Amino acid sequence: MSGFSFTIESEDGAARAGVFTTPHGRVDTPAFMAVGTLATVKALDPDDLRAMGAQMILGNAYHLHLRPGDEVVREMGGLHAFMGWDGPILTDSGGFQVFSLEGLRTVSEDGVEFRSHIDGSLRAFTPESVMRIERNLGADVIMQFDHVIPGQSDEPTARDASERSLRWLARCAAEVARWDASASSQEQALFPIVQGGIHESLRRAAARSIRDSGDWVGYGIGGLSVGEAKPDMYRILEVVDGDLPRDRPRYLMGVGFPEDLVEGVGRGVDLFDCVAPTRMGRNGAAFTRDGRLNIKRAEFRLDKRPLDEACDCSACRRFSRAYIRHLFTADEILGLRLLSLHNVHFLVRLMRDARGAIRDGTIDAWSKDWLTRYLSRPVTSE
Amino acid sequence: MSGFSFTIESEDGAARAGVFTTPHGRVDTPAFMAVGTLATVKALDPDDLRAMGAQMILGNAYHLHLRPGDEVVREMGGLHAFMGWDGPILTDSGGFQVFSLEGLRTVSEDGVEFRSHIDGSLRAFTPESVMRIERNLGADVIMQFDHVIPGQSDEPTARDASERSLRWLARCAAEVARWDASASSQEQALFPIVQGGIHESLRRAAARSIRDSGDWVGYGIGGLSVGEAKPDMYRILEVVDGDLPRDRPRYLMGVGFPEDLVEGVGRGVDLFDCVAPTRMGRNGAAFTRDGRLNIKRAEFRLDKRPLDEACDCSACRRFSRAYIRHLFTADEILGLRLLSLHNVHFLVRLMRDARGAIRDGTIDAWSKDWLTRYLSRPVTSE
Repeated sequence: MSGFSFTIESEDGAARAGVFTTPHGRVDTPAFMAVGTLATVKALDPDDLRAMGAQMILGNAYHLHLRPGDEVVREMGGLHAFMGWDGPILTDSGGFQVFSLEGLRTVSEDGVEFRSHIDGSLRAFTPESVMRIERNLGADVIMQFDHVIPGQSDEPTARDASERSLRWLARCAAEVARWDASASSQEQALFPIVQGGIHESLRRAAARSIRDSGDWVGYGIGGLSVGEAKPDMYRILEVVDGDLPRDRPRYLMGVGFPEDLVEGVGRGVDLFDCVAPTRMGRNGAAFTRDGRLNIKRAEFRLDKRPLDEACDCSACRRFSRAYIRHLFTADEILGLRLLSLHNVHFLVRLMRDARGAIRDGTIDAWSKDWLTRYLSRPVTSE
Repeated sequence: MSGFSFTIESEDGAARAGVFTTPHGRVDTPAFMAVGTLATVKALDPDDLRAMGAQMILGNAYHLHLRPGDEVVREMGGLHAFMGWDGPILTDSGGFQVFSLEGLRTVSEDGVEFRSHIDGSLRAFTPESVMRIERNLGADVIMQFDHVIPGQSDEPTARDASERSLRWLARCAAEVARWDASASSQEQALFPIVQGGIHESLRRAAARSIRDSGDWVGYGIGGLSVGEAKPDMYRILEVVDGDLPRDRPRYLMGVGFPEDLVEGVGRGVDLFDCVAPTRMGRNGAAFTRDGRLNIKRAEFRLDKRPLDEACDCSACRRFSRAYIRHLFTADEILGLRLLSLHNVHFLVRLMRDARGAIRDGTIDAWSKDWLTRYLSRPVTSE
């Protein structure tokens, strides 16, 4: 794994400012990674992402396996070449997606049989087959295939899934080891995923077991922001923080909203991803320092201000709320792009600002101020 | 009209290479103008248009009157400020739109009563009210309110509409003259529109009558590409060419496809507009030098080539046919933008190339070669 390293430049409490280096370049942490499920961050252009300083993005093994097919992506030179993004990429294994196919999937120790959400065709994922898919895609970081459960699952259910995820991790690692031993080895880092629901003892056991099972480049924290209460998520992050090696990056999967990122940074998380900024953007919701606003509301009809007066994204530098509202009212595609762009920029910059606060040793005060302002205005009805 | 001028730099047969100067900058002619009906060229960003060298774009009085309202646009500083486009803009009067509302409109000498296609509300356009709308929008060039008829209309129908359009032109001009006499005068050039269907005598009469009625900055040629046969369109262009002053720009409204632009240039047309490149782009069709292709076809699944190997647009410089096909298959918004961008760029560059050929004195040979290649491959089924 010569292409990977993680250097912590500053620490401030549990928070850290670091540099995660990958074969396709560096990621200054903490960082928000935009989600490009189907080899495109929805409504955005790779140039938009570069312009806002986004460094690392996601793809999804489940979705890309079904469309266009991971073999097609490999034929086209891998995900980087295919989608025109030469920076770091991480692929999620699709665990979350196949376990979300309630009623359409059967779980066994071997893996998961499921029906494609596109054409109903029968498919099977095993830890080994998912590794082969992620290898075809060619991302820098590939996530293990894990057993994902709902956020409020009871202890036995969570234990079963967590322990299966550990066994599957060993199988993922064995599959990857086979490639590394072969001539066609390529540089990809397998990240394990800590599961265990909202049960502290399970999370602790999973973290320790993973930590003791190998010298991992980084660690995923999964199964959060999937229906549990926010205080449960924060509590679990604190538990996991104590049991993962501090000299490796931690990636909190599928999180999230601006307030979750700020809370996560304070609990030692380095990497985040979430579809929220683009999904909400397509629905007309914009993040601002003063909370969310719904651009479709009549109050913005003649509003000459940008979405957020302190924002330097290319939507805010050029367009008024009134114009973007008009684009949404008229169902114009540019509106989807501008709000998606603004929201992703908002999270990328939020993490850049948090990084600055960690380096200044002021992350606590910065977080408190930021959260107070963001949460002070009631969210407008959407 | 101090802000406007037209200089012909070269002539080659009926074709001309010129510079049309407006208060918001110059337009090198012949030129294709992208259509931004609702204050946005569908799926594109103003930066995309600047990057491809587009100089002048369109807005539409009918659509902008209904949404967001021309008063809103005026409040927001006019169309240029509202949509972030500081180059020349032309607004169509909405004549084409209201006359397309078959069964929802009543025509009288005074104007047209119609029902909004959005909410069914009853509205009325007169030459005077449309001028006020176009003034609120603030485009550089404003088109007269005219009576538009289907392309195959018989002589009496075409005569009636053409003569009404002439009377309405006088009323439009009188309304504009009232502003010019007032303190709040602003720089907008009213373009008359030559109507007359496919009837040569009517076209000739209309062109002469308009030419003799004032010193117009430029001339619109309307009512073509509305269902008539292509040879009829070309014949009418030749008739009109002979009867319009050669020292002013001629704008062929709503045209069109690449082959129509090439044919139009050879018949003395300077400006074109059409929704085809963006509408077709959203449907998956791309212009190439070898004719159209439908990117959704399975044959492009693993095609590493750009849409058109000679194209230097930002889609062709970065992405394969296989990737763009995937975006369409997966209903991703980026696909709509990339094909729209490519198609508009294709027409903008086509006119830039035609301009070069006129200056070189080779427009005839250039047109023949271009048309032969473009039309040689049967259009793929779409």
